[in-house]
Amino acid sequence: MKRTYLDHIAATPLRPEVFEAMRPFLADSFGNPQSLHAAGREALAAVEAAREDVAALIGASASEIYFTASGSEANNFAVKGLATGQQARGRHIVVSAIEHTSVLNSVKALERSGFSATLVPVDRDGRVDPAAVEGALTKDTVLVSVMTANSEVGTVEPVAGIAAVCRARNILFHTDAVAAAGNMPLDVKALGVDALSLAGDQFYGPKGTAALYVRKGARILPLVDGGIQEGGRRGGTENVAGIVGLGRAAALARAEMAARVAAVAPLRDRLLDELLRRIPHVVVTGSRTDRLPHHASVCVEFVEGEAMLLFLDMKGIAASSGSACTSKSLKVSHVLLAMGYDHAIAQGSLIFSLIDATTGADIDTLLEAFPPIVERLRAMSPLYTEYLKQRGS
Amino acid sequence: MKRTYLDHIAATPLRPEVFEAMRPFLADSFGNPQSLHAAGREALAAVEAAREDVAALIGASASEIYFTASGSEANNFAVKGLATGQQARGRHIVVSAIEHTSVLNSVKALERSGFSATLVPVDRDGRVDPAAVEGALTKDTVLVSVMTANSEVGTVEPVAGIAAVCRARNILFHTDAVAAAGNMPLDVKALGVDALSLAGDQFYGPKGTAALYVRKGARILPLVDGGIQEGGRRGGTENVAGIVGLGRAAALARAEMAARVAAVAPLRDRLLDELLRRIPHVVVTGSRTDRLPHHASVCVEFVEGEAMLLFLDMKGIAASSGSACTSKSLKVSHVLLAMGYDHAIAQGSLIFSLIDATTGADIDTLLEAFPPIVERLRAMSPLYTEYLKQRGS
Repeated sequence: MKRTYLDHIAATPLRPEVFEAMRPFLADSFGNPQSLHAAGREALAAVEAAREDVAALIGASASEIYFTASGSEANNFAVKGLATGQQARGRHIVVSAIEHTSVLNSVKALERSGFSATLVPVDRDGRVDPAAVEGALTKDTVLVSVMTANSEVGTVEPVAGIAAVCRARNILFHTDAVAAAGNMPLDVKALGVDALSLAGDQFYGPKGTAALYVRKGARILPLVDGGIQEGGRRGGTENVAGIVGLGRAAALARAEMAARVAAVAPLRDRLLDELLRRIPHVVVTGSRTDRLPHHASVCVEFVEGEAMLLFLDMKGIAASSGSACTSKSLKVSHVLLAMGYDHAIAQGSLIFSLIDATTGADIDTLLEAFPPIVERLRAMSPLYTEYLKQRGS
Repeated sequence: MKRTYLDHIAATPLRPEVFEAMRPFLADSFGNPQSLHAAGREALAAVEAAREDVAALIGASASEIYFTASGSEANNFAVKGLATGQQARGRHIVVSAIEHTSVLNSVKALERSGFSATLVPVDRDGRVDPAAVEGALTKDTVLVSVMTANSEVGTVEPVAGIAAVCRARNILFHTDAVAAAGNMPLDVKALGVDALSLAGDQFYGPKGTAALYVRKGARILPLVDGGIQEGGRRGGTENVAGIVGLGRAAALARAEMAARVAAVAPLRDRLLDELLRRIPHVVVTGSRTDRLPHHASVCVEFVEGEAMLLFLDMKGIAASSGSACTSKSLKVSHVLLAMGYDHAIAQGSLIFSLIDATTGADIDTLLEAFPPIVERLRAMSPLYTEYLKQRGS
């Protein structure tokens, strides 16, 4: 069976060039970067070269990059580490209602230790209003965290505007750019952010590799206490091969950024237009204009996202119905609920996210396979039967 | 130049079988284990098979294994997560004075949030007395953490005895087995521990892969808050290739355990005996009897460990003078100080740790190269000149 992979947000393939960069560090070159001998120096040089590449992707300095093992760890490190690092000044945090679970649950953990938090609402497009962030700030606020782009609905947030609000009040601002970094141009200086999370498996790098940018001078406490690695801010032997892979993926993303965006954005637009045209009772979730270039998301009324996924999978098509981090929890997306969708519609969430190898033929395959699946599932749906009855009466 | 690698404790080579097991997950098989499609299911099956292999290495159930990205993360997760998980019962922790920095600094972080801690001393061999642990327990003690074996001096601790003391008082007991697991037989049930940390790069697995065993029923709070991965106890997309590599390394270690110990222990003993015979003013640090099979450590009086390392490196011999996690911090080892060595002697610390490919010829290479290095460095040492003067007078 031909396989059509439209689940970029869950994981991207590893680029062969990335694997080749990693390979020596999975073979003869196995030194610990902290060792005082030839094998150690070789590993250290590779780690530091990767740090330069990751920094260059987002316009940072290498000394501002801390490697972590996942976007979730980077988000935990940022939210907990920056909040506790500033707690002498205050113990209030502001985040948006549609943040990733790693941010929201970090906030809950901080609340258990005496912090308070305000969740800023979003509009129907999932957009956070900088003025709403400003309105949520108190004299005790020490940290704001709003994502760069949402992986479930694709909306790109007005990060520079929010950063400006925070900077004016001398409050640190972190942005979870895991879905965005490597997929759209980002520059930490232009955005004015104090901290930014990114993850390699979102731009053709290896799983288990990620990084947190922390602006020089911003005080952060470690999440993983330990030795002298990462400037004493993240203990643990470095995942040398993974870090090298992340660096190579960052360098590729930087070099190919414009071409990648130009390749996927028109396919995404065609996909969304055709889904709306071919299937009744479909809504596009998230913004159509401020949107991740590789991201198409919809809610299909009267059917469940999971059922559609399983039928698509039987046709060899991989997609998702929400964040992979919550996919099996069977909960309705907190993102869609925050955007004002009701439970019934939010259950029909589907995300088609394109990779750089996605072709027009892949989109055609989906567009042919999908409408009959929706039709078939609706035929079995009591909700749809009820709807037809009411419309008929 | 022929290279002689005697720095197992900093990092082991990746076994080729481990790399081959990982390779598919660095190529076509790139799914996210949480995805509801074929690519996701393939990844999930691989992760769960690895969990079985890691569990089998230490006599645990698969559901008791949580993957992490380093031994340091596993130690942070255990110490912080178990302590905060029990804090309704009390806020006192007991650890030994020679724990790894990831344990000691986790304890410091807990102290900043209202916990108190007692550091139990060790004897000249670096041994923790179970009776001393018992004496340190208070009615508020909720967690004890004592390592299985120390990576700087090789001493294997009486873990079963300490576990029995804790169990009798209904206090959770964690052991940092990063240096021990995969290198000596370990069984969590026989030891009676509630939690145990291990790391893949200590037994021919990949860097960036580790695990924490937590006995079923022991309450632990996450270190990395996030999604549904690892039973909701450790968020973040799984490092599938790394986890698969860790699983393969665990299976190899289990199958080859007896052979590995039988290969390195006699070489270690010969190395220690010959160092004592060939070089004056050398002391073996740590226990000679309760000792990691691959671990030889000494203090060489009147010279600095780092200088010896650099001269050995010039001869193509890789060794270490302490934990890689502190190697460049230029501090004298807290382990040796706790064992009662004075600063002057502790500065001459050297660790030769054997890998499974180490041969008698490697040991010969070291034994030939090392005495002239010591002699040369002593000739430049004001301390040694002073010593000779005093002896002569």
